[in-house]
Amino acid sequence: MADTRRVTAAVLLIGDEVLSGRTQDRNLQQIAQFLAPLGINVIEARTVPDIEDEIVEAVNTLRAKADYVFTTGGIGPTHDDITADSIAKAFGMTIDVRADALAIIEEWYDKTKTPVTESRKRMARIPEGSSLIKNPVTGAPGFQTGNVFTMAGVPAICRGMLEDIAHRLEGGTVTLSRSVKGDNLREGEIAEKLGVLQEENPNVSIGSYPYFIEVKAGEVRRGTHLVARSTDKRALARVIDAIADLVQELGYEPRIDPEE
Amino acid sequence: MADTRRVTAAVLLIGDEVLSGRTQDRNLQQIAQFLAPLGINVIEARTVPDIEDEIVEAVNTLRAKADYVFTTGGIGPTHDDITADSIAKAFGMTIDVRADALAIIEEWYDKTKTPVTESRKRMARIPEGSSLIKNPVTGAPGFQTGNVFTMAGVPAICRGMLEDIAHRLEGGTVTLSRSVKGDNLREGEIAEKLGVLQEENPNVSIGSYPYFIEVKAGEVRRGTHLVARSTDKRALARVIDAIADLVQELGYEPRIDPEE
Repeated sequence: MADTRRVTAAVLLIGDEVLSGRTQDRNLQQIAQFLAPLGINVIEARTVPDIEDEIVEAVNTLRAKADYVFTTGGIGPTHDDITADSIAKAFGMTIDVRADALAIIEEWYDKTKTPVTESRKRMARIPEGSSLIKNPVTGAPGFQTGNVFTMAGVPAICRGMLEDIAHRLEGGTVTLSRSVKGDNLREGEIAEKLGVLQEENPNVSIGSYPYFIEVKAGEVRRGTHLVARSTDKRALARVIDAIADLVQELGYEPRIDPEE
Repeated sequence: MADTRRVTAAVLLIGDEVLSGRTQDRNLQQIAQFLAPLGINVIEARTVPDIEDEIVEAVNTLRAKADYVFTTGGIGPTHDDITADSIAKAFGMTIDVRADALAIIEEWYDKTKTPVTESRKRMARIPEGSSLIKNPVTGAPGFQTGNVFTMAGVPAICRGMLEDIAHRLEGGTVTLSRSVKGDNLREGEIAEKLGVLQEENPNVSIGSYPYFIEVKAGEVRRGTHLVARSTDKRALARVIDAIADLVQELGYEPRIDPEE
């Protein structure tokens, strides 16, 4: 097997609205799905409130733990947007309105003859030594400070920012993922043999997830989704075949997901 | 203003499938929404992989930090379900198959003449001194260890388990939440006055969230969602009225959410 290079990421979601349950986060999934094909695996995610000390502590823990950290939320113009100041504090850097960021914001608002108010200028506050991240949706940039990428919380803006930073990320070996679904298969039926298969294949990670899908009112389709992940394509294929065989032997029709 | 009692919770989502982006988590939102009316506020959430040391560290950090911890995921019958053992390790407790848990599982499977395999017995492994949590969907129980509630990852099962533990939770003062939407309102227009309003009302927490909703292909409705939260109902009402006035003064139609 060829050498593999492991590259890791942590995601930090910042915002009371996610913790209160008012907003369903979409960014963890979209960031993880964006990074996977680059060979960057998310190893931890945290959600913290709009409290400076909490943000600082999480940023400093995560940037020491993972190769990259991606934060979302709290970079708008209102009083509750404290992420930029918190990142500066985490790095022990100064922060002020920066000419290049302000120029981008002024140019953006000029197009629609919208005044750049004092609060909009706040969005040009960038920690010392950071590089900017383009925002193709609303103009105001995100920024990269060391290995920490600070992005917007609105999923469409976050997505645009990811596109802008992809080329700055040094990827690793891609972890491939394939899966087999067995409708009506229950985890307990396959668990023992699956455990043996996992022991025999330490370089493939096998996960088992029951599903209960309400097809229509009162009618539930249940089954088990068996997911295998590995950096070794051939080992992965062998395990997927073996899982499909196990499902078949138990009397269920294995549905193998197309290769991803 | 009456005395308020602050009660906090942390949520720990356990599972590679959430971190890989394969599964969109629904449990953080459902747990937060379940706890809010009980006067319990989620102050932090973490997502960790199926790695014992990571789970142990997160459980021990969070149970010291919050009044209650709610974990989801990793309590099924397969080899990748390591949450029960990890919780036992975090508390320094022994763990073994427990008669009461096994009886529940046997009774459940007996109804459908399903054999209780060795791997299904694993689901009766409960850390010493824990009390059980009913699972109305698939039988195998969750458990409470000290201030930590260990629940299933499947959202429907997690929901059922929350119902079972509600009466065990000592709630606090309920944080009320109300909001005003302004279609076409942009954050930058209202930011300064909103900041002043926040300064004048320290016992109300005001958040501002831009939205971009694709109404149909290519047609986006944008605006700003202004959310106020407080344990003081009258202060909250005053702030909501003041926000609605600000939105109106700026020339937009405020849409006040019905009281919650």
